[in-house]
Amino acid sequence: MASIVVVGSMAFDSIETPFGKEGKILGGSANYFSLSASYFAPTRCVSVVGEDFPVEHLNLLKSRKIDVKGIKQEAGKTFHWAGRYSYDLNQAHTLETHLNVFERFEPEVPKEYRDSEFVMLGNIAPPLQAKVLAQIDNPKFIALDTMNFWIEGQRDALIQAIGKCHALIINEGEVRQLTRQHNVVQAAQVVRSWGPQILVVKQGEYGALLFDHGEVFSVPGLPLAEVKDPTGAGDTFAGGFMGYLASQAKFSISRYTLRKAIVYGSVMASFTVQEFGIKDLLTLTRELIDERYKRFVELTSFHVD
Amino acid sequence: MASIVVVGSMAFDSIETPFGKEGKILGGSANYFSLSASYFAPTRCVSVVGEDFPVEHLNLLKSRKIDVKGIKQEAGKTFHWAGRYSYDLNQAHTLETHLNVFERFEPEVPKEYRDSEFVMLGNIAPPLQAKVLAQIDNPKFIALDTMNFWIEGQRDALIQAIGKCHALIINEGEVRQLTRQHNVVQAAQVVRSWGPQILVVKQGEYGALLFDHGEVFSVPGLPLAEVKDPTGAGDTFAGGFMGYLASQAKFSISRYTLRKAIVYGSVMASFTVQEFGIKDLLTLTRELIDERYKRFVELTSFHVD
Repeated sequence: MASIVVVGSMAFDSIETPFGKEGKILGGSANYFSLSASYFAPTRCVSVVGEDFPVEHLNLLKSRKIDVKGIKQEAGKTFHWAGRYSYDLNQAHTLETHLNVFERFEPEVPKEYRDSEFVMLGNIAPPLQAKVLAQIDNPKFIALDTMNFWIEGQRDALIQAIGKCHALIINEGEVRQLTRQHNVVQAAQVVRSWGPQILVVKQGEYGALLFDHGEVFSVPGLPLAEVKDPTGAGDTFAGGFMGYLASQAKFSISRYTLRKAIVYGSVMASFTVQEFGIKDLLTLTRELIDERYKRFVELTSFHVD
Repeated sequence: MASIVVVGSMAFDSIETPFGKEGKILGGSANYFSLSASYFAPTRCVSVVGEDFPVEHLNLLKSRKIDVKGIKQEAGKTFHWAGRYSYDLNQAHTLETHLNVFERFEPEVPKEYRDSEFVMLGNIAPPLQAKVLAQIDNPKFIALDTMNFWIEGQRDALIQAIGKCHALIINEGEVRQLTRQHNVVQAAQVVRSWGPQILVVKQGEYGALLFDHGEVFSVPGLPLAEVKDPTGAGDTFAGGFMGYLASQAKFSISRYTLRKAIVYGSVMASFTVQEFGIKDLLTLTRELIDERYKRFVELTSFHVD
């Protein structure tokens, strides 16, 4: 089974939704991604934390067989994000961002990670994403996520980094902003002209679209009677997607493998949103994941005679 | 094949979108619905027009084998709606509404329509919807659509009318407003408690959800490289849904029949949005419709080994 390396944030999140409020719980893109991917394939994490980061959490990641050698601990505080969601859980309103140790983050990939076949360049500064990628010997599949902050501030460097990837995984609003195309079909053409043949557009509760070599596939979100906190759903989605791809016996990014990977992404995201923080990602089993996958089959099947 | 009767508006629409502007083109819920349903089953129309309504359009409907006996012509002007869409085509901004002859509309169902098996109570005042229904002898399947205006002004009468139906077909934002439940799964439970066992939630470009006896089904919208005007998409969707159901050899609202009907609804809506007004609904064939249905199969298939 192939290994995945992810670079991204480890963070404390303070979150308010109409369904509750949690202060300084464990979050961050690399955290959500790793926990999700670890149900499918060995996952290696590159990130940075401050002196206030609980060693128990690193042990917890280790217990999920996540390699934390690449998580540096530095003087200062861990990255802290505070945000609020209204009833429209698709849109986060940032209240506070304290980069802290993340401000001077220089990602170093441990030499034991350099043979990783799958690379997830999580949402950090585009030059750092490129720097991580340069430290992987022979990657077979590279995906990148980003956000409005980098689109606004470092668009050229971002497009350059995207050009080195096989897949761009991005929110619907952000792919519009990035490509300057409102229509997502046209946005997919722009992304393809930059390099990646695969574009995954995350649509929040509506699911995701996969554009792959001129074809399009749609997976819905799972309608849930209770959604508490959408934080991390996108990173969990990416973890399920990359994890499923890496878990395949031999490397093959065929049409249906990609489609199933997207569905596993949506499956993993559906767990995350049920509870605040990473809670629902800690107690899963591959059986529970596959049961929910079957719910997606039921949710979308109609062409049966 | 069973017949469908629809009550709703015939209108002139003045529409602005980022992709163009059209003044006083033919629209109205009964118009879009009938044209869409007519590709599947005999359709009978109950509505009202003014003296300014072009007889050519009634002839055009007749040429599509739509029965227009129930369209009364009255002194005064035809209903006129003016609206604008920004890039977010999911949301119409009403600029003007002139009810005109619609203000005094008293729907009368021609006696030849009274044996209709399928009834579509389009978006008009709830007491008028109930009045139309009372004039059908022995309906087998009744669906109702509505809008924020009636939810705000006549919620009790609306819930009473909904109670007589098998299916409620409604926009996502409006089912939230109507049920006072933000979560659509919970909203579906409220609707079921009022009577209808079937709830169809229209999600604009994201497609639709079908809640049916405790199960849920999701159909996406078709990602199109060009969308010009979403006006009428919801009515066209309802026309495809009801039309497909009515076209079935024997009356059976089984799980997969309903699901296929929802997909045909999304198929028909995907044609409507490609052009301003009813243009793309005039030149279809059942072959073109079934070709696009196959695109929905391709768009959503993943569980293939």
